[in-house]
Formats: sequence, C-alpha cells, structure tokens
Amino acid sequence: MNQHYQNLVQKLEEITHLSGVMSTLGWDQEVMMPAGAGEARAKQIAALAGVIHERMTDPALGECLNELKEKDFDALSEPERCNIREALHSYELETKVSKRLVQELAELSSRGHGIWVMARQENKFSDFAPVLKRFLELKQEWAQCVSPELKPYDANIDLFERGTTMDMITPIFERLKQELIPLIAAIRAHSYQPNTAFLQGRFALDKQEALARKISRDIGFNFEQGRMDVSVHPFCGGSHPTDVRITTRYKDSNFVESLYAVIHETGHALYEQGRPHELGDLPASESLTMGIHESQSLFWERMIAQSKPFCSHYFDTIRAAFPDNLKSATVDSFYRAINTCKPDFIRVEADEVTYPLHIILRYEIEKGLFDGSMQVDDLPHIWNELMLKYLGIQPPTDALGVLQDSHWSGGAFGYFPSYTLGAMYACQFYKTLLSEQPDTEKHISEGNFTPIKQWLNEKIHRQGRLYTPQELVRRVTGEALNPDHFIGHLKQKYSEIYGLTSV
Amino acid sequence: MNQHYQNLVQKLEEITHLSGVMSTLGWDQEVMMPAGAGEARAKQIAALAGVIHERMTDPALGECLNELKEKDFDALSEPERCNIREALHSYELETKVSKRLVQELAELSSRGHGIWVMARQENKFSDFAPVLKRFLELKQEWAQCVSPELKPYDANIDLFERGTTMDMITPIFERLKQELIPLIAAIRAHSYQPNTAFLQGRFALDKQEALARKISRDIGFNFEQGRMDVSVHPFCGGSHPTDVRITTRYKDSNFVESLYAVIHETGHALYEQGRPHELGDLPASESLTMGIHESQSLFWERMIAQSKPFCSHYFDTIRAAFPDNLKSATVDSFYRAINTCKPDFIRVEADEVTYPLHIILRYEIEKGLFDGSMQVDDLPHIWNELMLKYLGIQPPTDALGVLQDSHWSGGAFGYFPSYTLGAMYACQFYKTLLSEQPDTEKHISEGNFTPIKQWLNEKIHRQGRLYTPQELVRRVTGEALNPDHFIGHLKQKYSEIYGLTSV
Repeated sequence: MNQHYQNLVQKLEEITHLSGVMSTLGWDQEVMMPAGAGEARAKQIAALAGVIHERMTDPALGECLNELKEKDFDALSEPERCNIREALHSYELETKVSKRLVQELAELSSRGHGIWVMARQENKFSDFAPVLKRFLELKQEWAQCVSPELKPYDANIDLFERGTTMDMITPIFERLKQELIPLIAAIRAHSYQPNTAFLQGRFALDKQEALARKISRDIGFNFEQGRMDVSVHPFCGGSHPTDVRITTRYKDSNFVESLYAVIHETGHALYEQGRPHELGDLPASESLTMGIHESQSLFWERMIAQSKPFCSHYFDTIRAAFPDNLKSATVDSFYRAINTCKPDFIRVEADEVTYPLHIILRYEIEKGLFDGSMQVDDLPHIWNELMLKYLGIQPPTDALGVLQDSHWSGGAFGYFPSYTLGAMYACQFYKTLLSEQPDTEKHISEGNFTPIKQWLNEKIHRQGRLYTPQELVRRVTGEALNPDHFIGHLKQKYSEIYGLTSV
Repeated sequence: MNQHYQNLVQKLEEITHLSGVMSTLGWDQEVMMPAGAGEARAKQIAALAGVIHERMTDPALGECLNELKEKDFDALSEPERCNIREALHSYELETKVSKRLVQELAELSSRGHGIWVMARQENKFSDFAPVLKRFLELKQEWAQCVSPELKPYDANIDLFERGTTMDMITPIFERLKQELIPLIAAIRAHSYQPNTAFLQGRFALDKQEALARKISRDIGFNFEQGRMDVSVHPFCGGSHPTDVRITTRYKDSNFVESLYAVIHETGHALYEQGRPHELGDLPASESLTMGIHESQSLFWERMIAQSKPFCSHYFDTIRAAFPDNLKSATVDSFYRAINTCKPDFIRVEADEVTYPLHIILRYEIEKGLFDGSMQVDDLPHIWNELMLKYLGIQPPTDALGVLQDSHWSGGAFGYFPSYTLGAMYACQFYKTLLSEQPDTEKHISEGNFTPIKQWLNEKIHRQGRLYTPQELVRRVTGEALNPDHFIGHLKQKYSEIYGLTSV
C-alpha cells in the first residue's frame, strides 16, 4: 500500500470513527437520554460536529486525495479507488460551501424544527412558511455552490440518491400515477373490504415485544452485534456494522404496527450488519443511498412479511401470542387484514398502494418550488387539491396535510423520492430473487430466511459503495429501474385480495 | 469579560463537551453496547481520545492560559481564576509528559487489564508481576516529569486527591490501625453475632428495582436529569449535571447489596446533579477529587442509610416488598443485620469497620513499592502477612488476595487512599451537619431528606473546584481532616451493636 494511500486511510478511518461516536449520541438521545439533558447534549453534538467538519475539510485531506487521484489512481484496487472517489465527493461537498452558508443552514435547521412543531400543533401553516421560503433560497444557493452543472432540485436529490435526476424520476412517477390512481379508485369503489376487526383490541406489550424479537431474530438480525429498544419513532441506528440498533414503539391497541416496524427496521439492520467492513471503516464499505437502504427495509416489510407464505408460517405463532383476539381469524383473513388498501391523510401510516401517491405529491411540490412554478404560500391549497386528485380525499387541517412531515423543517428537499424508489427497487430485487431461487416462497412458508438473507448479503450489502444505485440495480437485476415490476405486483396482489376483475 | 478570557472559555467548554461525549460512550459500553461491538468501540474511543488530547495540549490554549495568568489574573473573579488555575494544571499534566511515555502508559494499561483478568482467573500472580513492575517504572518516570518537586508516590496520589501527601496520610492511617485492629478483634472474639438469616433467601428482582428507585428518588435523585440502569459493576456516570446515570446489579439472593449500591451511587449522583453548572461547562463547576466524591456516596450509604433512623423509616416499606422473608424481622434486627462486622478477603464487600484496613494494606504496599522497600515479587507474601496482622485472616488464593482489584492493572497507584479519606470526610461532614441541624436524625426517621441534601448542595456540591479538599473540609467543618470523628463513630456504633463494654 503506498504511503499516500495509507495516510488517506488513517484520515478517513478517523472520520468514520468520530461519525460512529456521533451516531451513538444520536441513538442515545432518542432512546436513553433523560428529558432534562437536551441542552447539554446539543452542545456536545455541536462540539463533535465541529471536530468532524474540521477533519472533513482538512486541506491536508484534500491534497492527499488530489495527489492520489492524479498520480496513483490506476494502480489501486477497485475498493481503494472507490474510497478516493467517495472521499473526494464528500470533501468537495464540505468545502465548496462557504462557512456563512453552512452556519445559516445549520441555524435555520435547528430553529426551523421548533417552528414546525409549533405550527403543526397550532395548525398554522403561515407560521412555518417563512422558514420554508428561506430554506428554498439557501438550498438554491447551496446547489449552485456544490453542483453548478445540475439543476438546483437535482443537486438536492443527488444528496440522497446519487446520480438520480428529475429526468429519471418524472416519467416513472407519471407512469405510477397513471396506473395507481385508477387501481385505488377501483378498490375504493368495490363493495368488498377485508375484515380487520380482530386487529383491534388489547395486545399485551410483553407479548408484542417477544414476538417482534423472535421474528427479527428469525429473519437474521444478529443480537450479538445489535440491540432493539423503544423510541418515539422507529429507526435503525448504531455506530458500526457490529453495533446496529433498531427501535420500535408499542401501542397496546395495535400489534401490527410495532411488529411491521420491527421487520422494516430489521431490513435496514441486515443491510448495516451485512456491510463489507473487512474493507476497513472506509467509504467503500458503507451503505449506498437512501433509496437502496429503503429497498432493504421494504423488501422485508412489504415483499416478504406482507406475503401469504409469511403469514402462513407465522400465523400460529401470532395467534398463540394473542389467542383471544385472533381466535376467529385464519391465515387468509390475517393476510387480507394486514393488506388493506385505504386512502388516508398521513404518509407514514399509508399502505403500499397509496404510499407512492403521497410521495409523488411531495415530489411534484418540491419540483414546483424549485422551478418557481409553485409558491410557498399556495402550498396548503395545492396540497389539498393534489390529495383530492390522487387519493380522492382532502385533509381537514394542514396539520394532517402540508404540515405533517418534519423533512422540510430541516431543509431536506429531495429526500422523499427515495421512499418510492426504494419500494420499486425492493420489488425488482424480489422478482430477481424469485427467478434465481424459485423455492423462495417455499422457504418463506417454512421460516427459512437464510437463503434470502444470503442473497441480499451477496448481491447488495457486500457491494458497499462500489457502484452507483443505477449500476447496482442493473448488476443485480439485469435491467435499469423498471416500474413495471412494482405496478404488476400491486395490481396482481390487490386485484386478488379485492376480487377486482379488470384494472 | 476580556477577550483572552472569552477565548479561554470557548476552548475549555469544547474540551468539556467532548469529554461529556466520551462519558456517554463509557456509559454505553458498560450498560448498552452489544457484546460484539467491542473492537469498533475501542477505535471510536481512541479517535475521540486523540481529539481531546489534541485540544488539551493545543499550544494556543497554553499561550492563552499563560497570558491570562501573567496579565489579567487579579482582575478576574474567583471562579474565573479557578478555571485558569485548574486548566493550567491539566495543561501541564498533559504537556509535560513525552508522547512516548503517554503511549507506553496507554498501551500497557490496555494490555495490562487483559493480563490481570487472566492472571486472576488462573490465580497466577507471576503472570501479572511483569506488568506491575513496568508500571512502577513508568509511573516513577511520569511523576518525575509532572511533579519533580514531589516524591513519586505523592505525585501519583495528587492525581486523585490533590494536595494530599504521604506526610498527611501516614499518621492518620497509623491512628486508624491502632484503634480499629483491637476493635475488630474484640468484635470477632465476642460471642454475640447479629442474626442475618432473614437477609438470605429469594428476593424478586422487580421488587428490588422498585424499592431502589423509590429510595433513590426519596433521597433526591432527579430522574428528569438522570437514569438508573443495570451493569456488571455499579457506577455513577453520565455526561453533564443534567445527565447523570447510575447503575446497580441485582442478585435474587441478596437485596441489601443492590439497594445499598444504589444509595451509594445516588450519593455520587447528587454531587454531580448539584454542581454549579451555571458557572459554565468549565473546571470551576466540576467535582473536586475522588476522596470528596467518595465522601458523598459514603455519606448517604454509611452515615444515613446504615443508621437506625433510616432503618426505622424504611423498615415497613422494605418488609412490604419482601413480606415472607422479613416476617420475623424487626427494625432493630434489620439494623443489626445490615451492620454486621466480619473480616473477609474482598475489599468491595467489606463492612465499614474492616474496609479501612483493606485500604491501609494497599496504601502501605504502594508506598513500599515506590520507595523501594518492597519488591513486586514479594507482594503475595506481604499481602497475606498484612491481612493476618490487620484482619486476622489469610486469603487462600492470590485471586482472593493481591490479585482482587483492577486498579493496578491500569496503573492507578495512589487511588486507594481516596476511599478511606472519603469515609473519614463523610463522617466529619455528618458530625458538622448534626451540630448545625440538630433535627437531622428526626428528619431521617421521617423520610425528610431535603434539608440534608440542601446542606450538602450548599456546603459541598455548589463549591465545585473553588477550594482544595483540605480547604473545603476546613471551611465546612471548621477543622482539618480529623480521624477522631470516624473512630469515635465506629467505636460507639459497633460497641452498642455488639454490646462491647470497653474498647
């Protein structure tokens, strides 16, 4: 290993280790930190963020990277070149932006969150509008600094889904609208609705937790190198592939929500635990993008755990946990109940058919805000119009509408598309798995998840950041992202559940 | 505030905040971290330690401190001068030692721990002896660098108990030996022994935890700014006065141990929660020394919670938690049972009468090793001889003798005396409280701990690091550390319990 590269590894691993510390702080804050420690914690996080920023923008790092890129690049291995490429990308993202802009974004992000919380609580969009306007200005300016060659919204998308642009997303989303709006309308118009009565009632929390742990472990979560706890919003965090931490929340009135949250987070966790960390604590071993990460959580949540073979394997176990509640249920009625499609106001509670329309609505708004065809002050009206058009319902308040998500309060524009890109990737990966391993449904119905996990490990997790998401999808599935798989899956599954004859 | 001082505050607060992050990592490692994450965590800790060391030895910090000390010192307030004094002390400790020595100490400390664990497990002192010898050499060299004006062992003591020297400790420890050895011998020779049968049995862990939480809260632990968890060894950690975290461990065969561990750690926690953090996250607001910290834990554990008024207040609550076990017990029999004096091999399990002799033995050995009057290879023999002389018993193995403590495996010489200094401070503080607030025992028997906590807050916790331990003791109690209080307390209490007529 040449001296420059060795020098680089040392610098990059230090950044990774300090970032791991930051992740532990973040997890602790959501899961463990006493309520009264918020102010002290904010200062600790700021101090550590300052150190990490200092390391990431260290001119010596820049010199080292440029030196390697100019002189030794071709002699290096693929993971080594990947480390240089990724580190240079981060270095440029961090250094191309003026300190003034970084600080203003950080300050607005922190202040914006508080304003959003209050505005949502009081259902007052006009209180939040100034934050949104200022964020748009700053994010336009930011985009101009970091990627002057991209349209400003594309530069924002790139932050979450590298290499993906509006040119790629828009036609796919148009296609989804064209297919899903009529499908949802047909489901709504249909007289049959699954019986979900047995999912209501009281479900003891200790039984919920035991069930969630069992299924998470069955799927492959390694509790020796991870943990599962409770937080207000479920998430997957942790500081390293050997320290992966998932959370959920329990309501005694609803066990499906917490169970499927655990399965979702386990999907994220398997990605983290499956990363190729023997390549070192370096960029090449990291997870790829938001969309690919979401493909892993949705793979397990939607493609596996909402399938009939999964329900048939676990139904007896689930009924044994809640015998009184589920005494009249069957595998089939359980499967139908957890796959109910019903338009509603809140994205995070949406089913797999309506979810993409929540995303498309947000995508179209972000696009419109960035290209100037929409104005912030008109958003409540635009939001409600689009909800009516896509899902046939209108939120009664802005709290249940345009104010529901936290993303914009932190300036995270371009994040939303990842959710639906992830759903489509998940479906496309699953179709490939089915064709490569035709026994997959049989494996699921036997509770044998090892071949599935191994396939994901090999095809996706262990690829780290060696490829772009576009390259990865093509390598794994033999084609580019193709919404047909997702559309076909939804149409077939929901036509069968709802007994639709033609959609 | 002048510019130099403002500059200093910024640098020192950054160090405090990063150290708070390090404390959170330490807590997480003991309480939450998955077993498989040890290696990744070690690297994260090393990266952060490197940053903190870099900040603490930053030449700009040194210049700033010297500038302030030379030019502006007298114009500053007392806490400001304290910050400069303490920061300069730390700066000098960090910078006077060569990088080579720092690294060798760190390396030996990390390796030494593993060797000690194995040596204790296999009861083989000779495996650990080389570590101890090398540590002695390095710690002599270290002492010569940081405090050439002090004897090497005094320089090591100074690290834990600033300003305290062998000249102060030796006569006090001699006095303790002279008084306690005959007291313990008299207790051993006496025919009466308290009945402790009802402390044996099975005690449900959830009842133990509920009881411990209740008493910790009653005493004054603020759970809004702290938490209580489980770890292998009880400790008090956390990252800030608003984030104080205590731990205990539960055995179903013994509730007294976990309950009194919680009370002990609550004493530490009240000190941390009571620090004057409105002075900023700066040295002046920190806790003073190991000995003073221990005085706070022992104050609550020994002086309050092992007293008769405390037992009389809580007996019914405790019996209600374990009704079958304690049905035949009374306040008096409970008080006697938890105050049994019985020489045994293990320091951490020792009662308040025999504990000081465990410490004195270790102090005399450390002193002998540093002045060359004892040799490492002779320690097993020396240890056993001293145990026989002081406590009348001899450990059957080195694992129960010279190998029992972890301190030396990390090079922590000079730490042990703090435990007994703390016990004596605690007793002297308590005597002062009794004279200033004559209703104290009544308050305890009524479960009214507020006046006691307030007194400690005002007299000790809120003093931060404004004074040396010697000055603080004199300010609070009107005299220097005086072992008479401790000796008198033990003699009176144990004569009464054991019905001794003349000791």
